[in-house]
Amino acid sequence: MSAPLKALDGTPDLTALMTDLGAGARRAARVLALASGEQKDAALAAMAASIRASAKEILAANAEDVAEAKANGSSSAFVDRLALTESRINAMADGIDVVRAIKDPVGIVTESWTRPNGMTIERVRVPLGVVGVIFESRPNVAADAGALCLKSGNAVILRGGSDSFRSCRAIHQCLVEGLRKAGLPEESIALVPTRDRAAVGLMLGGLNGAIDVIVPRGGKNLVARVQDEARVPVFAHLEGVNHVYVDKAASLDMAKTIVLNAKMRRPGVCGAAETLLIDKAAAETQLKPLVMMLLDAGCEVRGGDDIQRADPRVKPVTDEDWATEYEDAIISAKLVNGVDDALAHIARYGSHHTDAIVTEDAAIAEKFLNEVDSAIVLHNASTQFADGGEFGFGAEIGIATGKFHARGPVGAEQLTSFKYRVRGTGQTRP
Amino acid sequence: MSAPLKALDGTPDLTALMTDLGAGARRAARVLALASGEQKDAALAAMAASIRASAKEILAANAEDVAEAKANGSSSAFVDRLALTESRINAMADGIDVVRAIKDPVGIVTESWTRPNGMTIERVRVPLGVVGVIFESRPNVAADAGALCLKSGNAVILRGGSDSFRSCRAIHQCLVEGLRKAGLPEESIALVPTRDRAAVGLMLGGLNGAIDVIVPRGGKNLVARVQDEARVPVFAHLEGVNHVYVDKAASLDMAKTIVLNAKMRRPGVCGAAETLLIDKAAAETQLKPLVMMLLDAGCEVRGGDDIQRADPRVKPVTDEDWATEYEDAIISAKLVNGVDDALAHIARYGSHHTDAIVTEDAAIAEKFLNEVDSAIVLHNASTQFADGGEFGFGAEIGIATGKFHARGPVGAEQLTSFKYRVRGTGQTRP
Repeated sequence: MSAPLKALDGTPDLTALMTDLGAGARRAARVLALASGEQKDAALAAMAASIRASAKEILAANAEDVAEAKANGSSSAFVDRLALTESRINAMADGIDVVRAIKDPVGIVTESWTRPNGMTIERVRVPLGVVGVIFESRPNVAADAGALCLKSGNAVILRGGSDSFRSCRAIHQCLVEGLRKAGLPEESIALVPTRDRAAVGLMLGGLNGAIDVIVPRGGKNLVARVQDEARVPVFAHLEGVNHVYVDKAASLDMAKTIVLNAKMRRPGVCGAAETLLIDKAAAETQLKPLVMMLLDAGCEVRGGDDIQRADPRVKPVTDEDWATEYEDAIISAKLVNGVDDALAHIARYGSHHTDAIVTEDAAIAEKFLNEVDSAIVLHNASTQFADGGEFGFGAEIGIATGKFHARGPVGAEQLTSFKYRVRGTGQTRP
Repeated sequence: MSAPLKALDGTPDLTALMTDLGAGARRAARVLALASGEQKDAALAAMAASIRASAKEILAANAEDVAEAKANGSSSAFVDRLALTESRINAMADGIDVVRAIKDPVGIVTESWTRPNGMTIERVRVPLGVVGVIFESRPNVAADAGALCLKSGNAVILRGGSDSFRSCRAIHQCLVEGLRKAGLPEESIALVPTRDRAAVGLMLGGLNGAIDVIVPRGGKNLVARVQDEARVPVFAHLEGVNHVYVDKAASLDMAKTIVLNAKMRRPGVCGAAETLLIDKAAAETQLKPLVMMLLDAGCEVRGGDDIQRADPRVKPVTDEDWATEYEDAIISAKLVNGVDDALAHIARYGSHHTDAIVTEDAAIAEKFLNEVDSAIVLHNASTQFADGGEFGFGAEIGIATGKFHARGPVGAEQLTSFKYRVRGTGQTRP
């Protein structure tokens, strides 16, 4: 059994508790960095089995969280994110199996070369160390993040939303059981054992150097706070103000399919399109069909006079709209003077997340792919492909828009660093 | 001609000046990111030519700096770092030619794959953006860093030591002339046009998001301040507390050659060895010859009783020694119980920079290469190979010991990020 769990609220010495947690994770990280892929996979298999076997206990813990949230007057959307069902629990276990199937990134030699003096130099992947994951109401993040960090040889400190505390604790017990069964340190996956919100501030300070990177999973307020306060690197994106530019050389059919999918497949995900840019040179044939299609699909369209003329249902746009991630069935639309004007609009208002062009003109497509400064730039495909699973990474811990280390979907490979291994036969430097 | 240079001291509105500098660098970065390799190389060639042609002006400016430093009572070591000669100026120009010969890292596709739905995904190198370089007395850093940043498509803001202000300004004029001749924005390489020390603090704040990464070049005080205060990523190493472990299965001849080179080739560089660990199992045959060799070569050796017994010249060691980078002809020495004890010592006292093992036992070598958590780990080769040139990178802007993005020598490639280019034929996400 794991150590007795601390009380839900009130911790006499939070700093000491969190420092211990950090030191334990750091110790575990040293073991995990050298653990074999087989041992890590055995732990993942045991974790998934434990989650499936403990469905009843997890649901009971979750029911308490849900009851408390309802008593506190939480919104139904909030309760929906919090609530677990048998199928959601199965999906969690399946997700761990997916992570298990990913290729172990640790120890992979990505480059090697021989110097004129005969020394060989290898660049080899090593884990980052200790990942701090700060998330909100969805308890499944505990399982997803725990599994992905373990696969990549990292220890992880999980800090779930206080509203999902009991659910996370029940899931965490399954993860620890998996670690134990595989003979890996239980401290490899730590859960902050208190709802005291001050724990987040301590994690952002790095716990005396114990935390190497912070991954915030949640709404804009959380991400903004983490980006602002963290004293360690952060893998995150604040928002996805994503564009689809429909060029004059676009096929109208393809443009319709892609725009509809990019906005309406799931309007709330970070890869959803927020702004439609249409080439003035093709406005005559493309503007009206695209705008009508969106309106007919239940999407609010906002635009200037030229867009409003296409359909009386179009609402006026303000300058603020261009920088807004709606997270809803709303899109802003604008006519632009060709690809250069589209590029200028994206440079001014975009969030460096994901942007797409629809065109049959290969030269214009290449220009767009080269010049848009975003983590993901697509030609003739939907922005909703911004996802680690869709990229073939198996799973992701999030999407990053920074330019350092990890950019775009953050999968197992992106949770590694590297070192150089040099093999000589007695070489010295002249 | 470039804009008139600001007065040496006192700037009425430093914040406005630095913000303008940042905005200009950001504008230039957008142009540089799309500049061809040919255009960047043309600028580099013109820069080197201009430095060679302006040797007289650079020497005159440098003479003023040197005179001021001497009048201020600077040490002779300081004046030596500051002083330029004709041969040092030629070396600066030659260094730019070396950077020109490096392969352009921008636009290189490092990975590409096709998804089951037919989309192709490419990972392509792009510049980081704007690099801030903060350095001390050596004026040649202006040329080295300016050239490497340009090669990698980055704009750079250079802030040299106030003592080398006039020298840096003269060198900077040559760099700007090269940019102008190649038709690249003069703002691509900016020099902070004032000696006001508050400029450093503003750079560490990122200049309203204009600076993407800071590279400090100088002593430990500078690096520590930058690591502590910077609100943007930093590529740096605070110190190199590097180890050579001589295993019981080492060839004594090879151990002697490597240890002597690792410590004494240049005792002050960051790749110099600071601690010698000797396997107890071979102390009988190896301890005395290694210690005597170092002492005879003029190196002070510090150790415990067991080491002191090898030679009366050995001085006592304190616990502080194990964590000290001497930057001098001093080494601490210790007997350890085999590779595991050596690994434990390195984990406790090392600085994750560069460590080496000497052994003929392949299994022990592999264990050491895998388990030491340092940027560079060597088998049967000197720690003084910790250098971008020796790695074949052509040039480096420094060595990093962080685990994010760049680790080890930071060359042109490490000054890039990446983005994903996705090419489809109308794919939407189910």
